[in-house]
Amino acid sequence: MFDPLEKLKEFIRYPSVSTDPSFGEGMRGAQGFVSGLLGSMGFAVEVVKTDVHPIILASRGGDPSWPHVVIYGHYDVQPADPLALWRTPPFEPTVVGNRIYGRGAADNKGPLMVNIAAVASLLEENPGLPLRITFLIEGEEEMGSPSFEGFLATHAGRLRQADFVYLSDTALPNVDQVVITCGLRGLALLDLVVTGARVDLHSGLHGGVLLNPIQALAEICATLHAPDGRVNVPGFYDGVLDVEPWERQELAKLPGDGKAYMDFLGIDAFHTPPGFSPFEAIRFQPTLEFNGIGGGYQGEGTKTVIPSRAFAKISCRLVPNQEPARIKRLVKEAILSRAPRGVRIEFVEQHEGEPYVVVPPGRPNTPKGQSPVLARAFRATDRAVAEVWGRPPLYLREGGSVPIIAEIKRVAGLDSVMLGLFLPEDNLHAPNESFNLDVMKKGIETARRILKGITTS
Amino acid sequence: MFDPLEKLKEFIRYPSVSTDPSFGEGMRGAQGFVSGLLGSMGFAVEVVKTDVHPIILASRGGDPSWPHVVIYGHYDVQPADPLALWRTPPFEPTVVGNRIYGRGAADNKGPLMVNIAAVASLLEENPGLPLRITFLIEGEEEMGSPSFEGFLATHAGRLRQADFVYLSDTALPNVDQVVITCGLRGLALLDLVVTGARVDLHSGLHGGVLLNPIQALAEICATLHAPDGRVNVPGFYDGVLDVEPWERQELAKLPGDGKAYMDFLGIDAFHTPPGFSPFEAIRFQPTLEFNGIGGGYQGEGTKTVIPSRAFAKISCRLVPNQEPARIKRLVKEAILSRAPRGVRIEFVEQHEGEPYVVVPPGRPNTPKGQSPVLARAFRATDRAVAEVWGRPPLYLREGGSVPIIAEIKRVAGLDSVMLGLFLPEDNLHAPNESFNLDVMKKGIETARRILKGITTS
Repeated sequence: MFDPLEKLKEFIRYPSVSTDPSFGEGMRGAQGFVSGLLGSMGFAVEVVKTDVHPIILASRGGDPSWPHVVIYGHYDVQPADPLALWRTPPFEPTVVGNRIYGRGAADNKGPLMVNIAAVASLLEENPGLPLRITFLIEGEEEMGSPSFEGFLATHAGRLRQADFVYLSDTALPNVDQVVITCGLRGLALLDLVVTGARVDLHSGLHGGVLLNPIQALAEICATLHAPDGRVNVPGFYDGVLDVEPWERQELAKLPGDGKAYMDFLGIDAFHTPPGFSPFEAIRFQPTLEFNGIGGGYQGEGTKTVIPSRAFAKISCRLVPNQEPARIKRLVKEAILSRAPRGVRIEFVEQHEGEPYVVVPPGRPNTPKGQSPVLARAFRATDRAVAEVWGRPPLYLREGGSVPIIAEIKRVAGLDSVMLGLFLPEDNLHAPNESFNLDVMKKGIETARRILKGITTS
Repeated sequence: MFDPLEKLKEFIRYPSVSTDPSFGEGMRGAQGFVSGLLGSMGFAVEVVKTDVHPIILASRGGDPSWPHVVIYGHYDVQPADPLALWRTPPFEPTVVGNRIYGRGAADNKGPLMVNIAAVASLLEENPGLPLRITFLIEGEEEMGSPSFEGFLATHAGRLRQADFVYLSDTALPNVDQVVITCGLRGLALLDLVVTGARVDLHSGLHGGVLLNPIQALAEICATLHAPDGRVNVPGFYDGVLDVEPWERQELAKLPGDGKAYMDFLGIDAFHTPPGFSPFEAIRFQPTLEFNGIGGGYQGEGTKTVIPSRAFAKISCRLVPNQEPARIKRLVKEAILSRAPRGVRIEFVEQHEGEPYVVVPPGRPNTPKGQSPVLARAFRATDRAVAEVWGRPPLYLREGGSVPIIAEIKRVAGLDSVMLGLFLPEDNLHAPNESFNLDVMKKGIETARRILKGITTS
């Protein structure tokens, strides 16, 4: 078997920023690297072209009676900016202590390498392992997977033959407690653009005459939350799934110290919707956030302009059963109904994704007729985690989003077993992203036991 | 007398961009050119060193009983970029029809040359002209005159011996109507910085727990104006100078078409404080504007972060008798009193400038004991403009700011007579700046008559 750490370093060196077209070479490099690695392990590799970045589909067939797992991951990463805040170059992997630093180290190159290494090790140990495996590795996760729907339309048949999806693209709350993610929030994103005068104006010669688009934008954005922290958009909470008592009990087992979390964030007060602790709010409540805002002069010193336009980037995290398209419509309607005279409102559509939930076996709300292989996978996961980490996993919904999980469920009927491997201190989507090498080792052993477990139990 | 157009061409050829250190040679060239020209006219020229660009002080003394005028101007210009939009090279003066094109042609090289040429002509006509003259020509106007306060501290004594300041660095609304600017707005600028978590956060992993600093910023900014357009900061309007009926009447004589102005701005509604037309609001009312706003991800596509910080650049245009330091304090107090829990508020101090007003003689609010030489200068201006332009000037306050005018008043007690010579179509601070040669000729004759008038009436 190859050296997973060396392979991970090689993987990180490809600057595979999917959302920025100037990183095309890095994207092609990362895709070629993963394809080559899986090919060298004996997989039949197919690189499926899409409108943006290709999807890697790599299969190991076998007897139709063997269980069939789809292992998901993504080879693209977030942009590295602001570059000035990195202590090491983002695309030059650097090991310091028990951590490897680099953009994508934790999201998702490290965890994906864990699962590839586990498979490589299992197949080396037993070339006749009675398990069908399909790697499904995309390159558009960080830009909202725009090609995934089209891919599923043409390849759903292949996925439908599988039993479930296995992935590590969710969080590990701390090094002592593995969490299996059984719910994900959805996403609805759009940009709001407010335009005033046709050009930037001198604020002395024209100030006092017209509504400043930054002011209009601020006034609109300020209406989108109620003082209690809830989103102030009519209909926003319609249909939100109730929280099961076992979900709150499971969450209560997760070591969670509000004060420590506050210190970690560097804030002096939480701001959660009424009736939800911070840890509950992340998992069980939707949000409306501003991811960016811009307009006018932003440099050093001053420039006394009244800008022509200003914008805000809005994203909603959704919980089951909120529909992204409906939420976008409600947000737009609320904005338009509140927009002042004298400015023009426009929206730029960004991507969206459905929320997702899967219930493990043996819970009061487990669906009747759950796939036996899926149930076996969950039980194998319970065992493997208990053996490697010393305690069983917790089953929790999570605040993040992996929209394709809901999409695979909708189109191909497959549920997902999501074993989280990145820690809160891994700085995902932020400068100085890193991945814990102890977690990497344990992760490989856990994945080995889970995949083997499916074949034997 | 020299040929003013040829001298203006020579002046424009020096690329005297004060804000860009790479134009040091152009700055020195322009300074040397003006110093040499004034020296050749018999003036005692002193080049006063400052931390950035020197100030030219050129004097013609005489009998202490003679009136004493300070003629102000600046030899620096705005940057010429975007260069691609110029139809002729910005530093190669080009005459097309009745216009001379080039950076600085109207701001301020042309109007300054008008006043230098008028003085040269008067002295040629009558070498014994009973008028003391001090030219005060700075090189930092386009960068906010950072050295001016220090200059005044050491040279105020010389200015105090003079009777008034004369300058042409304001606007001519059209070729038929001269305006004497008798008021300028002041400035109070500061940046508001709102900080939440210590780093940018993943909006899925942490969204719903903390107050987003963009949201907090928007909510704070949204409180700073009332729905009627007035600034919503307690005490902001305290002491604001009432508008005199004669000021409104004078303004009513200025051709101004609201619909045409709206079309020029490209807006479909004005937004003025109650009781003020757009043209009045610019001149008589203070503002609080957002010149810039920024935070989080501003690129193409999406990045689902909760940013650590967001900021807004705030500028207030002030009218007499608002004090910049007091206004800054009130704005900061209002913001701090409205800031929500969970974010940190910081301010970055930017520059400020006092508002200014001077009342011409014969108005109901003319101060008792106004300097007789100043009163004589205004009357000479009335006469000269009526003779040369066919109708008397209008006396109007203006929306822009020339902070050094208020500074000279505060430190040396001198008021200013500001006769505007640049037209709206002269493209100040923009590509293809030009100066109207008919205005130049009329301007020289007007300045001749005003300066001569002071000595005789």
